[in-house]
Amino acid sequence: MPAHIKNWSRDDLLLVAIDEGSSVSATFTQNTFCAAPVTVAKEHIASGSVRALLVNAGNANAATGERGIADARACCRAVAASLGIESSEVLPFSTGVIGEHLPLQRLLDAIPQAADRLCSNGWGQAAKAIMTTDTAPKTATRELEVAGERVRIVGIAKGAGMIQPNMATMLAYVATDAAIEQSLLNDWVQEAVAASFNRISVDGDTSTNDACVLIATGASAPPSANPQDDDYARLKAAIIAVHIELAQAIVRDGEGATKFVTVQVTGAASSEEALKVAFEVGESPLVKTALYASDPNWGRLVMAVGNAGIEGLDTGGVNIYLDDVQVVEAGGRAAGYREELGEAVFSKPEFTITVDLGRGDSREHIWTCDFSHDYVTINAEYRT
Amino acid sequence: MPAHIKNWSRDDLLLVAIDEGSSVSATFTQNTFCAAPVTVAKEHIASGSVRALLVNAGNANAATGERGIADARACCRAVAASLGIESSEVLPFSTGVIGEHLPLQRLLDAIPQAADRLCSNGWGQAAKAIMTTDTAPKTATRELEVAGERVRIVGIAKGAGMIQPNMATMLAYVATDAAIEQSLLNDWVQEAVAASFNRISVDGDTSTNDACVLIATGASAPPSANPQDDDYARLKAAIIAVHIELAQAIVRDGEGATKFVTVQVTGAASSEEALKVAFEVGESPLVKTALYASDPNWGRLVMAVGNAGIEGLDTGGVNIYLDDVQVVEAGGRAAGYREELGEAVFSKPEFTITVDLGRGDSREHIWTCDFSHDYVTINAEYRT
Repeated sequence: MPAHIKNWSRDDLLLVAIDEGSSVSATFTQNTFCAAPVTVAKEHIASGSVRALLVNAGNANAATGERGIADARACCRAVAASLGIESSEVLPFSTGVIGEHLPLQRLLDAIPQAADRLCSNGWGQAAKAIMTTDTAPKTATRELEVAGERVRIVGIAKGAGMIQPNMATMLAYVATDAAIEQSLLNDWVQEAVAASFNRISVDGDTSTNDACVLIATGASAPPSANPQDDDYARLKAAIIAVHIELAQAIVRDGEGATKFVTVQVTGAASSEEALKVAFEVGESPLVKTALYASDPNWGRLVMAVGNAGIEGLDTGGVNIYLDDVQVVEAGGRAAGYREELGEAVFSKPEFTITVDLGRGDSREHIWTCDFSHDYVTINAEYRT
Repeated sequence: MPAHIKNWSRDDLLLVAIDEGSSVSATFTQNTFCAAPVTVAKEHIASGSVRALLVNAGNANAATGERGIADARACCRAVAASLGIESSEVLPFSTGVIGEHLPLQRLLDAIPQAADRLCSNGWGQAAKAIMTTDTAPKTATRELEVAGERVRIVGIAKGAGMIQPNMATMLAYVATDAAIEQSLLNDWVQEAVAASFNRISVDGDTSTNDACVLIATGASAPPSANPQDDDYARLKAAIIAVHIELAQAIVRDGEGATKFVTVQVTGAASSEEALKVAFEVGESPLVKTALYASDPNWGRLVMAVGNAGIEGLDTGGVNIYLDDVQVVEAGGRAAGYREELGEAVFSKPEFTITVDLGRGDSREHIWTCDFSHDYVTINAEYRT
């Protein structure tokens, strides 16, 4: 619902009430300057029961000192009063401009109204309320059968800039009506984030505010998932799939992005090494401007691979492919490569760059986007 | 002189003959995919005497495999034949597009002509010959008296993109007619590079080719500098000053740059920590687009400080200044700060951002530039 946090009339406040007995798990930004709501949310989630989430867009309540913490707590108290729960059962989240105080009174006025309007089917509207520079709301859903019961998973996310790994690089909320016990849920949220939000990059900056929350209400009432069951594996896979779909949606909506690119590294000595190379390629401004220009400037790919600082890498063993087109063979230009072939791939809105390091069996992939004039425009004008 | 390496008529080949008995020291790129000429130059400098430098622009001879190495060696042999020296006494350097083979015949044709045209006063012309996307040649000079003799230092450099620390991030050649013994010179080039080229950033990418060479011919024939002398300290300071002036010239000419910004970190627990924070701030695309927009979006500064991953940082002890204007006080907006004050600083073509971490006595600084539309344009169109 609209709390008029900025000078706009759109929805910018989201209140989510969570059924009693649900399991809730979360991961948070690793930025040292974490925002006030992150500090409070971490404290509240550690205390046990979580019954509500409050999310505002337009103001990050970050770098706001003691007053920021007090503001976040005041919001939690208002939610608690409206819903008849404890203030420590509320997790607060904020996203938007850093360094300005929350318009607290507007939030306190809006919270009871939001509580009055709670509905069980508001995910689409919720996805819209948490948007900042996003150009589209981001949702993902799955349905499957677990222990003979129909189980639903729904997720929403926001984020388009300040996107880099090391959790949590945006706001994402995923809920299922399956029953998943707390310790399992804690593991799953880590695993899901590692496979999704920690593999995307828009600009290499990590926000002060971001978080991913996974909720299992158990409302569909199947027996708790059992790690020995095939159902367990399918439920987990579906939850991870929702996270990946949301993460990819963030990259697709990357600020100014015109291309969605998978960077895949194979033949690595370790998974860590593969990810390092993938991020070095996927985050290089020179690679990203070449993607934007549809210019298969593979010299920049090679440069980026070399910058990953992989000890003992034999560059003569490196092969690079643009989709199926081999562009680098044994560290140099591939014999059959012609510029037109590379251009045809780079002109597509989606494609895969594969770097084969030729020194092991590990492989990893990340998702990135190009770096366009619009990225500069969006970020040069964001506050105005 | 023009070797027509690309389809242009400008000078693109530089031959430097070095007097017998000179000391020569160099540092090279740390990119794993280092270029063929870097491999050959490292081999040759290790073998002892250096009598000539050959530099071409327009083609990096990088990611060119065995043929690239053979091409670089062929160029060295041609220089050796023209000057009557050993091929191992020639250091080859290339800068330009990665992944294409050198137009070897054109180079072999041009080298004897370059040898015929050697002159003792060609530094200005030399600085032009090694340019790629540079918009201006970069030179720096100093003169001082050492042991009663007039001593000159002259340096040239090229570089505008693919600029990041970890040596060597461009091509730079500094020469003095002072006498400096080899082991001292080796120390000085490291120290000078650490104070200059390793403190600049344009886009965070490190090139495959870059190098810095320091030459001391001893032609002015003063007694060798003595570490106990005041002259020694002044000579060293002047050499470092030439390196810094060249490094700053590279940032000022950063691709698309409209601003020259010093990022200074004080109150750090260690020099390493101070540099980490300085680079995190100076390389953040979100900070750099804010610089471009003259928007004192200090929330992004705070975000970047938080991303440096400084263990145990008390964000409540962080103060940030834009020149003399305090914008962040104790981790939040400074009490007396008004937006107009920050805007006035950010609108200047040169200014300093100071981050005081408030936890120690170490301080460091780097130089960076903004991230503009033109950066994208230049790098989206470079090969065309």
